[in-house]
Amino acid sequence: MSATMIGLVKEVRGPGAVLKEVPVPRCGRDEVLVKIKATSICGTDVHIYRWDAWAEKTVVTPNVFGHEFAGIVEAVGSDVVHVRPGDTVSGEGHIVCGVCKACRTGNAHVCPNTKSFGITAPGCFADYAIVKASNIIHNAKDMPFELACLQDPLGNAVQTVLAGDIAGKSVAVIGAGPIGLMAVAVAKACGAGAVIAADVNPYRLELARRIGADAVINNGQVPLAEAIREHTGGEGAEVLLEMSGHPDAIRQGFEAAAPAARVSLLGIPTREVSLDLSSHIIFKGLRIEGITGRRMYQTWYQVKGLLEQGRIDLTPLITHRFSLHDYKAAFELMASGQCGKIVFTHDNETAAEHNEGEEHTHGGLELIV
Amino acid sequence: MSATMIGLVKEVRGPGAVLKEVPVPRCGRDEVLVKIKATSICGTDVHIYRWDAWAEKTVVTPNVFGHEFAGIVEAVGSDVVHVRPGDTVSGEGHIVCGVCKACRTGNAHVCPNTKSFGITAPGCFADYAIVKASNIIHNAKDMPFELACLQDPLGNAVQTVLAGDIAGKSVAVIGAGPIGLMAVAVAKACGAGAVIAADVNPYRLELARRIGADAVINNGQVPLAEAIREHTGGEGAEVLLEMSGHPDAIRQGFEAAAPAARVSLLGIPTREVSLDLSSHIIFKGLRIEGITGRRMYQTWYQVKGLLEQGRIDLTPLITHRFSLHDYKAAFELMASGQCGKIVFTHDNETAAEHNEGEEHTHGGLELIV
Amino acid sequence: MSATMIGLVKEVRGPGAVLKEVPVPRCGRDEVLVKIKATSICGTDVHIYRWDAWAEKTVVTPNVFGHEFAGIVEAVGSDVVHVRPGDTVSGEGHIVCGVCKACRTGNAHVCPNTKSFGITAPGCFADYAIVKASNIIHNAKDMPFELACLQDPLGNAVQTVLAGDIAGKSVAVIGAGPIGLMAVAVAKACGAGAVIAADVNPYRLELARRIGADAVINNGQVPLAEAIREHTGGEGAEVLLEMSGHPDAIRQGFEAAAPAARVSLLGIPTREVSLDLSSHIIFKGLRIEGITGRRMYQTWYQVKGLLEQGRIDLTPLITHRFSLHDYKAAFELMASGQCGKIVFTHDNETAAEHNEGEEHTHGGLELIV
Amino acid sequence: MSATMIGLVKEVRGPGAVLKEVPVPRCGRDEVLVKIKATSICGTDVHIYRWDAWAEKTVVTPNVFGHEFAGIVEAVGSDVVHVRPGDTVSGEGHIVCGVCKACRTGNAHVCPNTKSFGITAPGCFADYAIVKASNIIHNAKDMPFELACLQDPLGNAVQTVLAGDIAGKSVAVIGAGPIGLMAVAVAKACGAGAVIAADVNPYRLELARRIGADAVINNGQVPLAEAIREHTGGEGAEVLLEMSGHPDAIRQGFEAAAPAARVSLLGIPTREVSLDLSSHIIFKGLRIEGITGRRMYQTWYQVKGLLEQGRIDLTPLITHRFSLHDYKAAFELMASGQCGKIVFTHDNETAAEHNEGEEHTHGGLELIV
Repeated sequence: MSATMIGLVKEVRGPGAVLKEVPVPRCGRDEVLVKIKATSICGTDVHIYRWDAWAEKTVVTPNVFGHEFAGIVEAVGSDVVHVRPGDTVSGEGHIVCGVCKACRTGNAHVCPNTKSFGITAPGCFADYAIVKASNIIHNAKDMPFELACLQDPLGNAVQTVLAGDIAGKSVAVIGAGPIGLMAVAVAKACGAGAVIAADVNPYRLELARRIGADAVINNGQVPLAEAIREHTGGEGAEVLLEMSGHPDAIRQGFEAAAPAARVSLLGIPTREVSLDLSSHIIFKGLRIEGITGRRMYQTWYQVKGLLEQGRIDLTPLITHRFSLHDYKAAFELMASGQCGKIVFTHDNETAAEHNEGEEHTHGGLELIV
Repeated sequence: MSATMIGLVKEVRGPGAVLKEVPVPRCGRDEVLVKIKATSICGTDVHIYRWDAWAEKTVVTPNVFGHEFAGIVEAVGSDVVHVRPGDTVSGEGHIVCGVCKACRTGNAHVCPNTKSFGITAPGCFADYAIVKASNIIHNAKDMPFELACLQDPLGNAVQTVLAGDIAGKSVAVIGAGPIGLMAVAVAKACGAGAVIAADVNPYRLELARRIGADAVINNGQVPLAEAIREHTGGEGAEVLLEMSGHPDAIRQGFEAAAPAARVSLLGIPTREVSLDLSSHIIFKGLRIEGITGRRMYQTWYQVKGLLEQGRIDLTPLITHRFSLHDYKAAFELMASGQCGKIVFTHDNETAAEHNEGEEHTHGGLELIV
Repeated sequence: MSATMIGLVKEVRGPGAVLKEVPVPRCGRDEVLVKIKATSICGTDVHIYRWDAWAEKTVVTPNVFGHEFAGIVEAVGSDVVHVRPGDTVSGEGHIVCGVCKACRTGNAHVCPNTKSFGITAPGCFADYAIVKASNIIHNAKDMPFELACLQDPLGNAVQTVLAGDIAGKSVAVIGAGPIGLMAVAVAKACGAGAVIAADVNPYRLELARRIGADAVINNGQVPLAEAIREHTGGEGAEVLLEMSGHPDAIRQGFEAAAPAARVSLLGIPTREVSLDLSSHIIFKGLRIEGITGRRMYQTWYQVKGLLEQGRIDLTPLITHRFSLHDYKAAFELMASGQCGKIVFTHDNETAAEHNEGEEHTHGGLELIV
Repeated sequence: MSATMIGLVKEVRGPGAVLKEVPVPRCGRDEVLVKIKATSICGTDVHIYRWDAWAEKTVVTPNVFGHEFAGIVEAVGSDVVHVRPGDTVSGEGHIVCGVCKACRTGNAHVCPNTKSFGITAPGCFADYAIVKASNIIHNAKDMPFELACLQDPLGNAVQTVLAGDIAGKSVAVIGAGPIGLMAVAVAKACGAGAVIAADVNPYRLELARRIGADAVINNGQVPLAEAIREHTGGEGAEVLLEMSGHPDAIRQGFEAAAPAARVSLLGIPTREVSLDLSSHIIFKGLRIEGITGRRMYQTWYQVKGLLEQGRIDLTPLITHRFSLHDYKAAFELMASGQCGKIVFTHDNETAAEHNEGEEHTHGGLELIV
């Protein structure tokens, strides 16, 4: 008889989700079963919750979703040697094939065969989760779970900031959502010159100030390109980190980039963007990168180095904490934009008390595996 | 009394140009007077000759135009120590300020204070030209003038090809104009994997084959993105060199780029380009550079290393040679696209016989200086 | 009953080796059994054969040695999905742990937990070999086996040449053994400027000329540093590839490096080397890399791109071919230095005729696994 | 009649120096006359003061020495357009030719034709100094002179720290002299992981702690390589910054470097260093750079970005301030090692009151120009 647990399940291909009892997932030979201690809500989770065109195209159902987590290893598969029960861990969410050219040449983060933990594979808004052993990240024993679960989006920010030189350079972060706010913190921690944050949301701009932005721009009120130039002595930003995904902000960002600037694009526009390649990219000799996920696994080591030495403190970004049972309130708040990072604290001490040492198997619900 | 020379002058702000007698220009303290032996026609010169919106906005008149040249030093200014009369030389066309941040940080090619030899400053379609001493490039004595004058556009191609890794990678060159053709040759000389050239002009595609393309695509006849994928085993091009400036080709190029590909943009679109940043750039983790001019002066040293060791032979690209007196036929041919590179061979042995050793001054025509 | 095969076994911890019947090795879940078609002798194999201090310290016995090979997949383990029987393959010889920091950050080639195929794990001088599935490299069907088996040392050369910029730069290759000779070929194929090869062995210098060196230096007859400067117009080499491992040649190489040169060290000195760090490295602002193995697996993709497009032809380097039965003559010739690359052509059509489809097990001899 | 000033002059080729009246130097066409407000003592100045083998070989006499300064522009030559009287400035000390390959390819800091301000050309331990216009660095008006004069050695530290990736990596700084201490501060400001400083001088180790080292090692008391490994969880340092120049420390540093580590060498050993290239460099796949001077001028812009945004505070490093008149005490203290950075505050309000607007000429003493 298999053990069960509580999981937040996307069942119907429409808005919402349901918290219900589901089987504790089975741990394969090269997998790890993790008891979840803290998770956080990504913008992607809001897309899944609300169900938009991207979700319809991408998400597999029924599925426990959620992908940002920290926890404690409960059991490991028979082939796993570098992870042990009791280890405090998080995990990389891109489950990649390992044998394609991208994977074999340092570009696993764009492996065309990627499965996504919590999106196209079972995730972490639950008492337990299965993580591929290769994807396990060990956390320091003294790192609070609620900070450790932020390493996934922090990794997005770190990859973005460190995609090129940053020390001493003026930086404009466009879009002060959670990853943008983290990018502000990372840029400062990595020796950036003036760090400017732009958003249309005053709540987020206030968070940007608290996390350390040297200047903030409300681009709902002032023209963005012009404001960036003003804050950079007329020169434009030497590093532009695009976190908004808004076509107009993207256009103005390119316009406001200094000659030979670096532009890193992380925000995902939902429609095409029309750009003046000649004036804004070619004649200025820009360098641009598309950023997705985290470098596997350089980014995680950078994240660890920054966090464990206290170069970055993300505490001010955690504005709200919820129990998983209050998921509806949490998702509504997240959708409102009146928050920083929202963390679920999992209290699952007794949930799987009987399943240690046994082979886990699926119960009645046919969750994707 | 000042000496005179023959020069191809853009006098009226409209189509055409006139070959006429003009003063031999005066050599300033930090300048060099070069007797021109060979020049070549750039696409930019066709824009100037035909006079389009870009020319109206950019070009200074009256002015001797032309910027691709090779010649022999006739005289040097009093501050010049590293160039001597008799040296065989070419020159970098970007005349930069040297003291701005771009100039001081290895990005002189995007100096915002640039003057352009032959566009906003006097150029080389003449018996003599003035070149800033810092911009002089020494040529090997045995390098034919008609090849030496091609180093300027070859430098564009070299900067484009070498803006990232190239060895062993599949390369798609979109646009087989002269710089695209040179890029094919450079990519092959630098160890590229399969090199694919695309254009809509069969004449140019035939030249692409002759210069060494492993495959050619007539994207007037077949869908470009699909054809690139076919030629790369379904994977897409690992390096995409955009030389066409055509919005649709650019869009398809991005679509046909492999995961983690590098895209270098040199072709200048005359209008905005609408791009699917999400699918084609961000999720694929592309790296993109805007390419303009030549790295000052790394690119020139790369050009020399490649040419002087015979790693590249541009001879097949020189499809036509003209006297400057036949400039009308030359420009008409160039505009037709039924040519590779067109070279003017200058025969100016007697033109400036009296001006050695004297201080040159302007004559009647007020040419820009 | 297990099948047997012929293998060249290092049995005693002293000079020599023995060709004998041994069990066909068993293929584990994540392993591949390869029928060997061609192998080649590496300098390392000579150390094992002759048995020196390095071998005594490093090599495991008894063991089938040899690590450069090409063959056809005979069988694959149950977890293997990207390799199939009949595939033509070679393999990376570094068997790494995959979970340490080096492995996870693009530096698997220096994984501290490495096992070496043919040195500390069973190798390929035999009818069959076991290769970890992750280490399999697919070869084009039309690539001759005798060229395909050279990809391992070619990878050493490619990693060395491409450890920094090469296009248009003057290159000095010190040491014209097989990898040095390959480096000459790779440097030329990748657009190097003048390529100069140095050695004390006239036979090898003649091979260097044939493979394309623009100049050769016999540094048994002329001072090396001085000769390199002469061949580079007094400037020194912009790229120095150290393939000799000789302390004096290394010292002179550093002396002959141009300001801001790149020095890549692959040759293994057997004792310490005394260097003038101040004059030869610090004040010249050199950049130096230690090179070992091949980047996993970028280097292999570069190798494939270069070979499959015909950018490099290694045929002139294969100076001798032997049957494995004539291994004594082959190793003596290799030790003499009067050869390029020596290839063993394996004729093993019938050797394992009965072992298809069955689980392979060890026989009497306790070979390492 | 020419104006005079006070200058600290190296007259005799032996120990010591003399403070005396000398002519205010003449400002050439492309030069700038700077009224000196603060200077600091470099280790190089101690070599000049004490007169060792390096000084005998290198230093030109008689000469005003000193090269670290901040001041106010008094006058500019006729060709100078980007510097104006009244500007607050410092200056790069490497006076380079600008036309050699090193200068033209981003490596001016190793230009073989370099003259050194304060060593082979007149320097700044004086009321006034002449600086080549291209070498002028503008300071923010509100930057204290005593901090601004530290930008030269800070630039050494910045170039060293930023010669490769630093964010999140463990860093060992060997040698806690002023540049080593600055490197500690820069590494932390740029997001390094654990930063470990090593020296044999307890005073300097205490300064290292105050400037932010996460751990310090007294390698006069404990074995260096072992201690570094202990502080890095057995792994070794991922970044090793060699600031000591001591052969034994250098050897142990290489031994303590992690696989794939980066080693940047700035300290100048006075004799050859014997290294185990095989075990410590090649098999570990290290990358090593020789560091000298500052990148011209990327490093200066990095310095400015870090200083002006307050990412680094060097105030704790200025342990002593002197008048130039007390130069003997200052040099003795510097030689003792019981200090951080020593600054001379120049009080020269009246020294050159009559020389504004006039052409400066040399007086009786034949100082080098």
